[in-house]
Amino acid sequence: MSFTQVAIIGLGLQGGSIGLAIQQYLPEARVTGYDLDPATRARATERGLCHTVSESAEDAVASADLVIFCVPPGAMGAAAAPLRDAIPAHCLVSDVGSSKKAISAALAEALPDHLVIPAHPVAGTENSGPDAGFASLFRNRWCIVTPPEPCDLLKLTSLVHFWEALGANVEIMSAEHHDLVLAVTSHLPHLIAYTIVGTASDLEDVTQGEVIKYSAGGFRDFTRIAASDPTMWRDVFLSNKDAVLTMLQRFTEDLTALQRAIRVGDGEQLFDHFARTRAIRRSIIEEGQDDSRPDFGRSDHDGAARGKTKG
Amino acid sequence: MSFTQVAIIGLGLQGGSIGLAIQQYLPEARVTGYDLDPATRARATERGLCHTVSESAEDAVASADLVIFCVPPGAMGAAAAPLRDAIPAHCLVSDVGSSKKAISAALAEALPDHLVIPAHPVAGTENSGPDAGFASLFRNRWCIVTPPEPCDLLKLTSLVHFWEALGANVEIMSAEHHDLVLAVTSHLPHLIAYTIVGTASDLEDVTQGEVIKYSAGGFRDFTRIAASDPTMWRDVFLSNKDAVLTMLQRFTEDLTALQRAIRVGDGEQLFDHFARTRAIRRSIIEEGQDDSRPDFGRSDHDGAARGKTKG
Ligand SMILES: NC(=O)c1ccc[n+]([C@@H]2O[C@H](COP(=O)([O-])OP(=O)(O)OC[C@H]3O[C@@H](n4cnc5c(N)ncnc54)[C@H](OP(=O)(O)O)[C@@H]3O)[C@@H](O)[C@H]2O)c1
Ligand SMILES: NC(=O)c1ccc[n+]([C@@H]2O[C@H](COP(=O)([O-])OP(=O)(O)OC[C@H]3O[C@@H](n4cnc5c(N)ncnc54)[C@H](OP(=O)(O)O)[C@@H]3O)[C@@H](O)[C@H]2O)c1
Repeated sequence: MSFTQVAIIGLGLQGGSIGLAIQQYLPEARVTGYDLDPATRARATERGLCHTVSESAEDAVASADLVIFCVPPGAMGAAAAPLRDAIPAHCLVSDVGSSKKAISAALAEALPDHLVIPAHPVAGTENSGPDAGFASLFRNRWCIVTPPEPCDLLKLTSLVHFWEALGANVEIMSAEHHDLVLAVTSHLPHLIAYTIVGTASDLEDVTQGEVIKYSAGGFRDFTRIAASDPTMWRDVFLSNKDAVLTMLQRFTEDLTALQRAIRVGDGEQLFDHFARTRAIRRSIIEEGQDDSRPDFGRSDHDGAARGKTKG
Repeated sequence: MSFTQVAIIGLGLQGGSIGLAIQQYLPEARVTGYDLDPATRARATERGLCHTVSESAEDAVASADLVIFCVPPGAMGAAAAPLRDAIPAHCLVSDVGSSKKAISAALAEALPDHLVIPAHPVAGTENSGPDAGFASLFRNRWCIVTPPEPCDLLKLTSLVHFWEALGANVEIMSAEHHDLVLAVTSHLPHLIAYTIVGTASDLEDVTQGEVIKYSAGGFRDFTRIAASDPTMWRDVFLSNKDAVLTMLQRFTEDLTALQRAIRVGDGEQLFDHFARTRAIRRSIIEEGQDDSRPDFGRSDHDGAARGKTKG
């Protein structure tokens, strides 16, 4: 079974990319969309993010067989609850939220009559809004699906096929495990990046101009993710609090150990640690999740660009 | 006055890039080189990193009017001391080390009869060794020169012109200030990246395979700099200990504040912090030290690639 009418609630980076990707990779399906912000709806219509951008969420979902909520993590429940009667009974409900336990619970509570199978495409950029989306965002990226127990296997299979059609590789795991994995691979890195960028801009001895000027020395790599959407990330940290605080605790312990090694001049411990982390980078490049090429392999999003890189 | 014979000691990323850049941008000058490792010397000869790769450091410097030490920060003194008699009296001595106070002191002690004007090109990659260098490494990047007080202004001017010829923008400051600025823009980011990559690979609940698989969520951005050369970075932290520990202290305070905001659910504080850091990213892009394009503007190293990017 494949979906014939997909409704997208929230037409920012994720929602817009899904709308464009459906039109490109699933040309038989129709896609409707809605966003709370009239300006976003207008821009979404202009860019053709969906076949139809509706003026109400009820209209957008009226004849859908798949509804995907693409709003900030903290807005999922509020976006879904008013649609309890409008979403057809047989329609599958999903989302793209960056944390899964809290969002799954919010959606299940808001839509108790519907089957909800949450998902999270691990694909993003630091941009947001209706101009940010592009059809190839999900290509060669992972999408994690976190089905409830028990789950309708036919619907689950359809959702998996949907994401595969958009170019993603799908992995299935529990919402709890998802939240731990993402706490370390995404949420903690963002928290650290946000922190260090803040620290660097608050110094007395070094001006902000100097920080910016010499950022190519390493700082630059952190600023990209520290430019991510503040609303989304506030919600991510609040909705995945436990796992984030656990990972942060580990990080702090490890940082304290390296700090001590620097203080007492223990060069051997520093060298051993640094040599070990270098090996991990190598594995990531081998796995194809990053790239030693100058564009970090970002051109792989674009199937056509494969093989065209210089070195 | 421009230099006519440059000797490079240490033919890795920096030394190799300088050798290639001289041949490309200063065709009137001759460049000789030496590296402690016979395999590196052989590879340097093959790649043509210098006009002549000598079998001894003494030979390499014998008729130089500029010697640049491009060895790890901790090896500067040991590389320079044996050359006290071999380096011509009028010859200017410089280096490219990533910390400046400790290295300046080590070089001044090793070569008390020579004028030493230390420098630091803020340009690098995570690669090292004789295959890593390329002629355009310094283009559109900053080079910080930290002259002693007082300093021969003619020689200082010549060194500034030398780096400008290689494509760098030169800035002059004290070694002390350099070390503070770089502690925050480069050394702290590397320490944090090394730490988080270590933390992520040591968890029981999340496998290393999972960390690698989902690294596109943010973690990936940290692994690039955590793959940098362990010897160099051990030396950087040990040679710039005070400034690094000071910046680390600030970072830890800020991280503790955000941790508390997550714990107590203070969404407003999180939002305000994240909105502020987003603005800093924008300034970096405006300053041309990074880029919103997919390759992070790395193609700017290559003058020819300017204007060729897709979007
Ligand atoms: N960005 C990433 O890298 C990334 C990656 C994977 C998953 N995600 C997840 O994807 C979701 C969306 O993120 P995004 O990056 O696409 O954000 P975005 O670009 O800001 O888009 C979200 C859109 O949802 C709208 N919205 C908010 N509340 C709504 C409601 N009740 N009904 C309808 N529309 C509403 C917003 O409008 P207003 O502007 O008026 O608020 C905005 O246009 C989040 O849950 C996030 O966790 C993001
Ligand atoms: N990498 C960066 O991003 C970057 C940026 C700016 C500045 N720097 C500075 O540049 C300097 C060199 O770094 P790099 O990245 O070019 O390192 P690299 O690629 O490892 O090259 C250093 C070379 O120096 C050789 N060497 C070590 N001791 C020596 C000695 N006593 N005499 C002669 N050669 C010796 C090494 O040989 P062995 O392999 O046998 O040890 C190696 O080939 C460091 O001081 C660093 O702080 C680096």
